[in-house]
Amino acid sequence: MLDITLIGTGGALPLKDRFLSSCIMKYNGANFLFDCGEGTQISLRRQKISLSRINTILITHCHADHVSGLPGLLLSMGNDMRTEPVTLIGPAGFARILHSLLIIARELPFELKVIELKHAHESFSIDGCKIDAFRVDHSISCYGYTLEIERVGKFSPEKASLNGVPMKAWGLLQKDEQVEFDGKIYTRDMAFEKARRGIKVLFCTDTRPLNVISDMAKGADLMICEGMFAEDAKVCRAEETKHMTFVEAARLAKAAMPDELWLTHFSPSLPDPHNYISVATNIFQNTVCGTDGMYKEIKFKD
Amino acid sequence: MLDITLIGTGGALPLKDRFLSSCIMKYNGANFLFDCGEGTQISLRRQKISLSRINTILITHCHADHVSGLPGLLLSMGNDMRTEPVTLIGPAGFARILHSLLIIARELPFELKVIELKHAHESFSIDGCKIDAFRVDHSISCYGYTLEIERVGKFSPEKASLNGVPMKAWGLLQKDEQVEFDGKIYTRDMAFEKARRGIKVLFCTDTRPLNVISDMAKGADLMICEGMFAEDAKVCRAEETKHMTFVEAARLAKAAMPDELWLTHFSPSLPDPHNYISVATNIFQNTVCGTDGMYKEIKFKD
Repeated sequence: MLDITLIGTGGALPLKDRFLSSCIMKYNGANFLFDCGEGTQISLRRQKISLSRINTILITHCHADHVSGLPGLLLSMGNDMRTEPVTLIGPAGFARILHSLLIIARELPFELKVIELKHAHESFSIDGCKIDAFRVDHSISCYGYTLEIERVGKFSPEKASLNGVPMKAWGLLQKDEQVEFDGKIYTRDMAFEKARRGIKVLFCTDTRPLNVISDMAKGADLMICEGMFAEDAKVCRAEETKHMTFVEAARLAKAAMPDELWLTHFSPSLPDPHNYISVATNIFQNTVCGTDGMYKEIKFKD
Repeated sequence: MLDITLIGTGGALPLKDRFLSSCIMKYNGANFLFDCGEGTQISLRRQKISLSRINTILITHCHADHVSGLPGLLLSMGNDMRTEPVTLIGPAGFARILHSLLIIARELPFELKVIELKHAHESFSIDGCKIDAFRVDHSISCYGYTLEIERVGKFSPEKASLNGVPMKAWGLLQKDEQVEFDGKIYTRDMAFEKARRGIKVLFCTDTRPLNVISDMAKGADLMICEGMFAEDAKVCRAEETKHMTFVEAARLAKAAMPDELWLTHFSPSLPDPHNYISVATNIFQNTVCGTDGMYKEIKFKD
């Protein structure tokens, strides 16, 4: 089961009642935070989310509205007595910017493991989740992310027996693709049916529309995608600032067909994005305008 | 008339319903912001205060809870189309820290005039106000501030005539201490009664108690002072962390006798400081626990 909470849904500037775009996903005790603008730690507290349990922070890009909350959040995590390392992933150049921001947070009681993304597509396995980072098209280097919980197929004792897999290997093949006993190698497909549908969520903000976004959103239970501008007449402004309109985001969803699309990262000039939702739902029915604190629990389908 | 609003009253960490300690004072169209931790711009918006009109930012010290909101605030002021310079005053070393934080705010459409305090006491005249910065006792270099609006005495035509001050000099002596006409110098005391009581407010946080604080608060209409710890049993903790208890702040007020004392910068472990107010009022009657958004308008007394 994966829990998802939108921590903020604003773009560029925090408003009095809308925090900057950020999202937390929780799986099996591991917490993944996506982006951390000014005030993210305040909104996390409002959502009653324990700061000290954040294991991994994934940064889309280094504009202020996506990173300015990092020193405060990390200091607060230290204050909450965290001692385990925290992994931070961001685009090339992120480490230098983080170091510069941390001039006011020099003594943290935990290690920071900083990973800089160098390629157009990179994959990681973290705390039982598959993380994919894919480069998108913004005014500076920027990445979208998917978080995926893969799920093995059902165990088949008949198949295992037929393939001569010893009983002591059955449990181990649940965790590992292959195991070795008495000099023989046994693979998962010798004892299990084909992999079942897992859980997949995409988080993508600050970009023009790209095919890679809909490709990465294929099979997703939830696609969280920026919609900086509501009216399609603002497409020129979206092109200039390297953002998207509701229509552009909805078109990407239509191509990908996730179960649901949540729009986020709304322009400060858009006080009530809900008023414009129909321009997106006309294209992709299952579109919802994100709000701070919006929550979803995604379970395995079978 | 001086308007004062507490923007936040929390120390160390922002809480879900208490922003970090900060205060804004407004006189005759000029806005002075004292300290700027994470979320200050959000709380300013909640108090309906225009960010772009902040002329001067006074920083007590460079701990994260007092400066981490600067990049976001300055970016938002730029976004609001401000083009006039902004003056920032802080302790020695502040310019380097500000520069490091501004790695995510490189292109501001206005000039930053940064003043570093080097001496134990420095005075400035800004936008019709007298600002005094005085060094206090924290774990890093830290300053308290007073903002004072001085007020000349009443004009006395009898005194002016008696002293032979020409009529064309009367108005000018309201603004300047002395003027020159036809090779003769005329001073204000030749035409005006002695100076009347002006308005004075002190803002002082993150320090152990010191005589200089009560000296500077003498004659103040309002003394805004930290009270990190409520119970006096926490005095050891206050000594360790270089903060004050309610009792210590109240004793400073008793020595200074300002019209009113507002406590601020409460520890995150103190969810409701009001429960402890009597320990301060027993020493200095006119003590109030600050709350975010608390507002006062101070007028000239006569």
